[in-house]
Amino acid sequence: MNPQKPSDNHSPTDCEILELISYNRELHDKYTGTYTTVESILNKIQPDRVNWINVDGLNNQDLIEKVQTHFCLHSLLIDDVLSDQRPKAEEFDDYLFFTLKMLYRIDGTAIDYEQISFVLGKNYLISFQEKEGDWFDGFRDRIRLDQGRVRKKQADYLLYRLIDIIVDNYYNVLDRVGDLIDETEETVYQNPSTQTFTKIQYLKKELIYLRKALFPLRDALSKIVKGESDFVKEENIRFFSDVYEHVIHLTDSLETYKDLVSSLTDIHINAMNTKMNEVMKVLTVISTIFIPLTFIVGVYGMNFHYMPELDWRWGYYSVWGVMILIVVGMLAFFRHKKWF
Amino acid sequence: MNPQKPSDNHSPTDCEILELISYNRELHDKYTGTYTTVESILNKIQPDRVNWINVDGLNNQDLIEKVQTHFCLHSLLIDDVLSDQRPKAEEFDDYLFFTLKMLYRIDGTAIDYEQISFVLGKNYLISFQEKEGDWFDGFRDRIRLDQGRVRKKQADYLLYRLIDIIVDNYYNVLDRVGDLIDETEETVYQNPSTQTFTKIQYLKKELIYLRKALFPLRDALSKIVKGESDFVKEENIRFFSDVYEHVIHLTDSLETYKDLVSSLTDIHINAMNTKMNEVMKVLTVISTIFIPLTFIVGVYGMNFHYMPELDWRWGYYSVWGVMILIVVGMLAFFRHKKWF
Amino acid sequence: MNPQKPSDNHSPTDCEILELISYNRELHDKYTGTYTTVESILNKIQPDRVNWINVDGLNNQDLIEKVQTHFCLHSLLIDDVLSDQRPKAEEFDDYLFFTLKMLYRIDGTAIDYEQISFVLGKNYLISFQEKEGDWFDGFRDRIRLDQGRVRKKQADYLLYRLIDIIVDNYYNVLDRVGDLIDETEETVYQNPSTQTFTKIQYLKKELIYLRKALFPLRDALSKIVKGESDFVKEENIRFFSDVYEHVIHLTDSLETYKDLVSSLTDIHINAMNTKMNEVMKVLTVISTIFIPLTFIVGVYGMNFHYMPELDWRWGYYSVWGVMILIVVGMLAFFRHKKWF
Amino acid sequence: MNPQKPSDNHSPTDCEILELISYNRELHDKYTGTYTTVESILNKIQPDRVNWINVDGLNNQDLIEKVQTHFCLHSLLIDDVLSDQRPKAEEFDDYLFFTLKMLYRIDGTAIDYEQISFVLGKNYLISFQEKEGDWFDGFRDRIRLDQGRVRKKQADYLLYRLIDIIVDNYYNVLDRVGDLIDETEETVYQNPSTQTFTKIQYLKKELIYLRKALFPLRDALSKIVKGESDFVKEENIRFFSDVYEHVIHLTDSLETYKDLVSSLTDIHINAMNTKMNEVMKVLTVISTIFIPLTFIVGVYGMNFHYMPELDWRWGYYSVWGVMILIVVGMLAFFRHKKWF
Amino acid sequence: MNPQKPSDNHSPTDCEILELISYNRELHDKYTGTYTTVESILNKIQPDRVNWINVDGLNNQDLIEKVQTHFCLHSLLIDDVLSDQRPKAEEFDDYLFFTLKMLYRIDGTAIDYEQISFVLGKNYLISFQEKEGDWFDGFRDRIRLDQGRVRKKQADYLLYRLIDIIVDNYYNVLDRVGDLIDETEETVYQNPSTQTFTKIQYLKKELIYLRKALFPLRDALSKIVKGESDFVKEENIRFFSDVYEHVIHLTDSLETYKDLVSSLTDIHINAMNTKMNEVMKVLTVISTIFIPLTFIVGVYGMNFHYMPELDWRWGYYSVWGVMILIVVGMLAFFRHKKWF
Repeated sequence: MNPQKPSDNHSPTDCEILELISYNRELHDKYTGTYTTVESILNKIQPDRVNWINVDGLNNQDLIEKVQTHFCLHSLLIDDVLSDQRPKAEEFDDYLFFTLKMLYRIDGTAIDYEQISFVLGKNYLISFQEKEGDWFDGFRDRIRLDQGRVRKKQADYLLYRLIDIIVDNYYNVLDRVGDLIDETEETVYQNPSTQTFTKIQYLKKELIYLRKALFPLRDALSKIVKGESDFVKEENIRFFSDVYEHVIHLTDSLETYKDLVSSLTDIHINAMNTKMNEVMKVLTVISTIFIPLTFIVGVYGMNFHYMPELDWRWGYYSVWGVMILIVVGMLAFFRHKKWF
Repeated sequence: MNPQKPSDNHSPTDCEILELISYNRELHDKYTGTYTTVESILNKIQPDRVNWINVDGLNNQDLIEKVQTHFCLHSLLIDDVLSDQRPKAEEFDDYLFFTLKMLYRIDGTAIDYEQISFVLGKNYLISFQEKEGDWFDGFRDRIRLDQGRVRKKQADYLLYRLIDIIVDNYYNVLDRVGDLIDETEETVYQNPSTQTFTKIQYLKKELIYLRKALFPLRDALSKIVKGESDFVKEENIRFFSDVYEHVIHLTDSLETYKDLVSSLTDIHINAMNTKMNEVMKVLTVISTIFIPLTFIVGVYGMNFHYMPELDWRWGYYSVWGVMILIVVGMLAFFRHKKWF
Repeated sequence: MNPQKPSDNHSPTDCEILELISYNRELHDKYTGTYTTVESILNKIQPDRVNWINVDGLNNQDLIEKVQTHFCLHSLLIDDVLSDQRPKAEEFDDYLFFTLKMLYRIDGTAIDYEQISFVLGKNYLISFQEKEGDWFDGFRDRIRLDQGRVRKKQADYLLYRLIDIIVDNYYNVLDRVGDLIDETEETVYQNPSTQTFTKIQYLKKELIYLRKALFPLRDALSKIVKGESDFVKEENIRFFSDVYEHVIHLTDSLETYKDLVSSLTDIHINAMNTKMNEVMKVLTVISTIFIPLTFIVGVYGMNFHYMPELDWRWGYYSVWGVMILIVVGMLAFFRHKKWF
Repeated sequence: MNPQKPSDNHSPTDCEILELISYNRELHDKYTGTYTTVESILNKIQPDRVNWINVDGLNNQDLIEKVQTHFCLHSLLIDDVLSDQRPKAEEFDDYLFFTLKMLYRIDGTAIDYEQISFVLGKNYLISFQEKEGDWFDGFRDRIRLDQGRVRKKQADYLLYRLIDIIVDNYYNVLDRVGDLIDETEETVYQNPSTQTFTKIQYLKKELIYLRKALFPLRDALSKIVKGESDFVKEENIRFFSDVYEHVIHLTDSLETYKDLVSSLTDIHINAMNTKMNEVMKVLTVISTIFIPLTFIVGVYGMNFHYMPELDWRWGYYSVWGVMILIVVGMLAFFRHKKWF
Repeated sequence: MNPQKPSDNHSPTDCEILELISYNRELHDKYTGTYTTVESILNKIQPDRVNWINVDGLNNQDLIEKVQTHFCLHSLLIDDVLSDQRPKAEEFDDYLFFTLKMLYRIDGTAIDYEQISFVLGKNYLISFQEKEGDWFDGFRDRIRLDQGRVRKKQADYLLYRLIDIIVDNYYNVLDRVGDLIDETEETVYQNPSTQTFTKIQYLKKELIYLRKALFPLRDALSKIVKGESDFVKEENIRFFSDVYEHVIHLTDSLETYKDLVSSLTDIHINAMNTKMNEVMKVLTVISTIFIPLTFIVGVYGMNFHYMPELDWRWGYYSVWGVMILIVVGMLAFFRHKKWF
């Protein structure tokens, strides 16, 4: 599957910005609503179930405040949700805060980032997304249809699954970057141009940004894997450990790609130089051959009264002979020196 | 808001260099004075309030000594306040010493640094500034008007807020640097020139200096975050932890910008080379076309008595024909080789 | 021995994909089968022996599931076996999971990687290979013939031996890379060309990939060497420590090769430039010599009515004399300046 | 103050190579002598005072041996004093050994290094210097006149003060390097030349050597700051901590300078290329304009009998017109392409 | 002393490959023999003395096996002795294994490496050398003549002394490298050539290999210094600590040399470019001056019937005047632009 903007039509109405999925082994309920119906939805939360509250769009301050009040969220946490943050995991008294970047690749070139933040409590998980639309639709179906383990597990497993889905998408994006590097490498060898160079620089830049999103994520997950959080159960740490391994794998690939792209720059510069050198060399060889010939014909264009060669019967033809000899000699010399 | 030199007109008189803001939940007093009235102001300090003593200008030795005596400050600490220091946090018996750099960006190009030092005691905070004028005016109003949490908190929270304001300003400066990088990138692709290169080098240099101010700040805050200080209460460490995260975010961005600027240098060099190569190529192609032609006309400028072509009726026109053929052939060849 | 694709004819029938070698000090049995006979083979496992189950090919889901069920393997583990992983060691409750890359070098140029995963239990070792054919045939014979220590040891020693064989093969591959670097260095000095540059870039790329396979392996082995695993006996840690040392030695060599290849790039660029400069210099010198001469003969090609030199008896010869003097003078000057 | 070779005339006679300053709160004695009077001076050491023994010149083996015997110094320590060492702190049973480099800047260009070693015992401090002359004369006066804290403190404070004086001198040297970098930067932009490049390389080299002297010093001081030494009292660690901070500040500056110098190299290379390109461009433009003109006049220099233009009344003037048109056209084209 | 291949004539007969030096405070015995007399020599080992067994040449499997059996050496240890290893220290139950590289510099250019391995037991030290000849002859005499401390110490001190001698030799080799760098730097400034570049690359390569030998040695010694070995007495750790410091000093120098060599490459490339630019500039200037002149004389070589200048009395001389003016003007312009 080519990475693309995930579907943004999972909701019946466009104005819906709050979604509650509440489930346990037996039951599954889903409520969606706008900011006007926030309280009624929040009241649907049931303590004996896993409650996943998903907030789309962070511009409605009223909504955010209601959620904050309902779950007693720290004001610093809300600041972090609303502003651009490096991926991190932070343990509060009553919940675990986790924020990372979700990746989109729109129309195959530029990478788009969206910050997604999670608050994991005892029996709930809140997810804050900047924009509508995410990669979780398939997973929502799996919850509803009770596929896989998720309905048998608690909120921490839900968090793992969502992070896992986001990280899986990094693989798609990085694979696409890998393909682009391969394509560019072929182009560089065959036809180095300013376009190719711009493309290489673009790749370099994307890798710099990816690095900024991925490296702190590794540290954030490492905190959970070390068992520092009270909200992730011992038995589920292995799952986070698995995502953690994936992120390390991704950072490894990132470093590899970085080296490959830097290698591409070298190849490009070399290819450009080689091409330029070839042009200059051939042109210079042509000039060099004709300059002595022009001198010779100049000699016999002089108007001295006493120039014996001018009166010779075969003078003109001899000059041609001499010139042909010179050309052949020079060509042989250049060929011998492997100059073209 | 564009980062600018902060207002320097918060004081009624220019000669005022000492300011005491003394507050608790109910009361708020503000005293300002010059070095002649230092003692009377210091006597206004009340043990049951938070006392913020702000010193502007470090040249008046008499003033510094009076403050030092009043609070029993270590002579090494005063040395550090007066000389250029790398950002650091140092725990003394009776207070915590914290020093960092405050950033200004005057008229949008050069970054200006001012060293600001804090001494945090049980119920007081002393701030030493090199020059008058700072970023705290809005915050002074918030204290006076009892907005936010500050009046309910102790001196350590005050220290957090001041550091937070300074670090927030780093974001403004770094955003401006980011904008400059974007602007320069566009220029580099469109019109690479020595001016662009100088601009890139300027950016590089600013980043080097920023790095020198930011990296030690991270270490200094990390000390407090680890709970090593007795003067920051357990409950307020989370706030410092938040500033600490911001500083790490800033250092991440700094590294990203460094990579982007180094990438810009590559792009610039490549653009310059490409431009130069193009000039040389076109010019050389012109020379190369005319050199053989000049040779040919030279041939028929020779004065040999026996040159049959000269007497031909269509000789002159034939030569023109041959020359046109040569030009067309060479152009076709160059075009085929994609040399221009 | 030149590294090559290991023999893939160790099996009597092509469709065999499961192999069980079961041994202790006295007894040795070998069973092979296809996925249809999996259960019957798994039933042959005897608790008082070391049982080595080797699975070739990971596409038969049925087979994998049967093995998974029989040994109660975690689903995450099976995911890791089936997808591309960075080398790692992971301790589960009932077994140790170890995965790494096996190297092939087919026809002396491109390196081929195959992921091989091990599951080490109390009395068994399962190995999962992507493709048929491995480097273990000689070792299978040693087990059968009871050579060396292996029949006297348990399953953890078996794991050590298999990893050791794979790592030994890294040496072969790295030696070949070392030879290629030496060959290329000689070529670069004698005849730098685009082919050589491509070759250097190819080497660089291979080293980047090798690095990605080797560095995580070091970390994985380090886990075992530190005694973190319950499935490797204290007395056998020294053996793993030995492989660990080999891997560190390999990473050292890798770094050395990386430096050498980067040095090669410098040498190549310098050689190219030197060659180009020489060409340009000689050609420019030729042009420079003939340009003044062409000017002189041009002078006496002018048609002024009053040019006294034209009527001189020895005018023509004098011009030749002057021109020869100029050539000799210029050559002497160039030689003096060491320009060619 | 410009860093200079420190005074070498603090001693009445040139042959004096041993100096004993013995002091406590009340008393101060100073003895100097040559190697012949070593014993008599060493006998002047009084257990209830701080005794500072300064040895100038390390060539007199007899003297060194006497000192070694008197203080029971380890033979490895004496080896370290006599040979070139990286800065380090080493704790022995009866004393602390500390060695570092003292910097001189003679006549503003080359940096000169001298190794200075300290042995700190219970009530004495021995300093070994390679050459006569040091930066301590002002401090000797302060001891004599009982200025500052030194007479109230023990030998460990004396060690701190001497190291502090040496490290302060590093600041002078590094400031000078900073000034040189600024000067060179201006020159590079205005007039890049081989001299500038050599200067940059010289700065790079000095920074490499400074690095070698400064980085191990950081580690050595860190040992003392961590309280690992029995010979530095708890209360005085803060002073060493202060020097330690200075050294870290210095290493930061060093890294900054290294980046700036490396940036200078880039600027220089770019400036050189720009200059060269400009020369080549203008010259090539001139050639390119005249080559087609020379062709045209060549055409009418041909001797064909039937060349109608030659007989035209305004032929000559028409040719001039055509040529002027060509020149104007080409200049317009070049100007349009921004080639000069 | 210039580092050279150490003497290889310390043995009376060439076929001698085993040497036993057995000593204590009072007694000293030396036995040498070939592999045929191994047992008889090994029987001479006396438990109350320090026994140094030196094995020259590792090709005689029989000998190695006898030694292995006599001292119960682990088979992995023997593998390490016989194959190329990175320097390391490894603690076994009954002995400490230490392996490192011994350096030779043959005829002043190429560095030669020999692996030397030590096995340190309670009262013996075995040294395995690849080839005959080592740096220990002077030390053997010191043992025999009871000079220095060695006869009063145990086998661990003997190991220290041997390692110390080998490390001292690294200094010689590195000093030689330092001299070569200085020599090359002078050459680069005066006469940059391909030979110089090759020399620089050679130095780079040697440093890469030295690095590979030195860095692991640091780690190996660090293990002993930390007191992890039971076979090195507490009181002798200081000696190993001293060698350890030397090795760190050496690695520092190595890094410094690496930076200097990389700086040399920059200088060389700059020098080459400067030289090439100068050549091109002067040659181009010459061409540029003559091209307009050639055009002018071409003008008056035209054969138009109506060219008034041709008939002027002073036409020819006027043309000369104009041309001289042009040359003078161009030279002035070039000089003004500082183009040559």
